[in-house]
Amino acid sequence: MTSPVTITAPEGTPFIEIVRDFDAPIAAVFNAYADPDLVRRWNGPNGYEMRIDAYDLTTGGRYRYVHADPEGNEYAFTGVFHRVRPDELIIQTFEWEGMPDEVSLETMRFSDLGDGRTRVSGWSVFPSIEGRDGMIENGMERGVVEGFERLDALLAH
Amino acid sequence: MTSPVTITAPEGTPFIEIVRDFDAPIAAVFNAYADPDLVRRWNGPNGYEMRIDAYDLTTGGRYRYVHADPEGNEYAFTGVFHRVRPDELIIQTFEWEGMPDEVSLETMRFSDLGDGRTRVSGWSVFPSIEGRDGMIENGMERGVVEGFERLDALLAH
Repeated sequence: MTSPVTITAPEGTPFIEIVRDFDAPIAAVFNAYADPDLVRRWNGPNGYEMRIDAYDLTTGGRYRYVHADPEGNEYAFTGVFHRVRPDELIIQTFEWEGMPDEVSLETMRFSDLGDGRTRVSGWSVFPSIEGRDGMIENGMERGVVEGFERLDALLAH
Repeated sequence: MTSPVTITAPEGTPFIEIVRDFDAPIAAVFNAYADPDLVRRWNGPNGYEMRIDAYDLTTGGRYRYVHADPEGNEYAFTGVFHRVRPDELIIQTFEWEGMPDEVSLETMRFSDLGDGRTRVSGWSVFPSIEGRDGMIENGMERGVVEGFERLDALLAH
């Protein structure tokens, strides 16, 4: 079962909220965020290759990964995990290296909807309203929607 | 010489800007942020004791410190360093543990004003406007102003 993504980006604010439900138990959904071998299989837009250089989903850990499009253009992302509580919470920084030092802070909360279903609620804060708007204009939604659809498929196995 | 602090918190936004000039070269000012033995001597309001549990000012490092007021009440702060470039830039998360999971992101830029003077420009982003307002109402300004005055004294030696 595939659910819609709700992306909310109130005008004149630096915030983005992303909410998505999954037809899988919370431990399985969290694990798909925690295990780099799984992350690689669902994160990002369709048709991109994902290479993970570092991915230590623990409080104080860091990550760096690269999405390569079919033409071989690479997009690298990096950050640190401020707080991780398994099956509950991830707070991390997020930077696209193509726009260095423009860092956002993301909080993802995992909640049990019952009946083996799970909600992931993400809250991103950007250092400026323009930075937030730029992220949306640069196709963020496509990567989010397509990535979550691949995550549905991964969780169904 | 002591300079005023400029604190700007535009109404209806989650941002705080803090700008302060110091009568010392950039390497000395940055070092006062980098060396925990120095940080302990200037950070926070007057009359508080500062205990540092962790302080690794490098990209991917983390920190945790505790301010204790004269009555012995403790206020703990923790975060990770997303990016550090000596004498130039610190990007870090910031959490007061008394309000868990309410994390802000701080960017501090160090710039050379010439004549041995240095500007530190800080930009904080909070996950909500209410969180930003709460930080201001809870006496942030006093800690900033008094801390920077003690930093002036430290740099004058």
